[in-house]
Amino acid sequence: MPSVAAPHVKGKQMTETTAHHEHSYIHNDTKGDYLKRLRRIEGQARGLQRMVEEEQYCIDILTQVSAMTKALQSVALGLLDEHLSHCVVDAAREGGDEADIKVKEASDAIARLVRS
Amino acid sequence: MPSVAAPHVKGKQMTETTAHHEHSYIHNDTKGDYLKRLRRIEGQARGLQRMVEEEQYCIDILTQVSAMTKALQSVALGLLDEHLSHCVVDAAREGGDEADIKVKEASDAIARLVRS
Amino acid sequence: MPSVAAPHVKGKQMTETTAHHEHSYIHNDTKGDYLKRLRRIEGQARGLQRMVEEEQYCIDILTQVSAMTKALQSVALGLLDEHLSHCVVDAAREGGDEADIKVKEASDAIARLVRS
Amino acid sequence: MPSVAAPHVKGKQMTETTAHHEHSYIHNDTKGDYLKRLRRIEGQARGLQRMVEEEQYCIDILTQVSAMTKALQSVALGLLDEHLSHCVVDAAREGGDEADIKVKEASDAIARLVRS
Repeated sequence: MPSVAAPHVKGKQMTETTAHHEHSYIHNDTKGDYLKRLRRIEGQARGLQRMVEEEQYCIDILTQVSAMTKALQSVALGLLDEHLSHCVVDAAREGGDEADIKVKEASDAIARLVRS
Repeated sequence: MPSVAAPHVKGKQMTETTAHHEHSYIHNDTKGDYLKRLRRIEGQARGLQRMVEEEQYCIDILTQVSAMTKALQSVALGLLDEHLSHCVVDAAREGGDEADIKVKEASDAIARLVRS
Repeated sequence: MPSVAAPHVKGKQMTETTAHHEHSYIHNDTKGDYLKRLRRIEGQARGLQRMVEEEQYCIDILTQVSAMTKALQSVALGLLDEHLSHCVVDAAREGGDEADIKVKEASDAIARLVRS
Repeated sequence: MPSVAAPHVKGKQMTETTAHHEHSYIHNDTKGDYLKRLRRIEGQARGLQRMVEEEQYCIDILTQVSAMTKALQSVALGLLDEHLSHCVVDAAREGGDEADIKVKEASDAIARLVRS
């Protein structure tokens, strides 16, 4: 695939041959949003440690674990949507076998999410 | 039921001596283990921020999200097992309606976990 | 623990009088409800076959699969709640190690549900 | 979109205008496999009714529910993979807004699966 036609290359220092395998398809305008959500999730992990440390009621701790799991899943679904919209669609448009590889990768990631 | 023997009393009006029993049913020997696991989960949340910051490949980020979700679920299942072993079983042994309340709470927590 | 009082004995060698208690802890008044829900789920499985046979749109088939999965999970959560309310609570009240065994079984079943 | 360019039209009797919205992307060689798996799932639903009817042990019923849920999820993941491989990739190749619509539909279906 000629590098000039690779619409998904984003990193500046990447070599051309590895570029399309290695980059996130996170839009610059959503990147800050993901970071904010992940910082909140990190805060939830610290909050859980405090709850365990203070021996708070198990059921209350479990409620927080469920909230944190939902927040993580929501991040995963957002990332997956961006991946399908950009990486898979771009690979399909370029033609070749790349689309099959990308779909296989995405399907495997979806299976891990559904089963986790 | 005498208040001194009530390990399931929860709330502000508890006496101090019973307070730490009423709350979490986390054994002292497993508490350190939960804290260690939650610190590792907090580290995973920070690792995810780094991956997003560095625009790493979406699928790799999703793999880490799945690993973190599994780690969280495993903590939840451990806490739930301790809760059933101690809180629900103790309430059942004391008699009265408390066991029903505890089972209802546990069932609601399980439903949140299954659906999250 | 005397065998006559053991409501958790399970197997072929049970006496008839205890048999129906040992097994399922499904209340007679909820049994009909579970059967009705499972018949509806069986109908959903047949509906899915028809959809595949008629080559209906994948996304519509997936929507039905999600609805069926939710219906199944709801049955599982109901059964689990009855199991905790009756089997686990009864075992706890009888004393002995039986409660530990019952909690272990329930925790394993919960883990399978959460991970499936 | 001109009907001559619609590579995903499969049904013989379809009208051209509705074709691309309405059809499964299930390959003819996998269709039989899905039907077989769904018939087995239907059989599991009947098996569960028998277990409830015979008042079998709750935990054993729950084990079967988990197995059936896993079988259903596996069908869903297979259908989703085919949908991404054919419907989404084809829409991307055709250009236009169709790919966005297809990705949005797929993402919504994935979210329902992950949350169910």
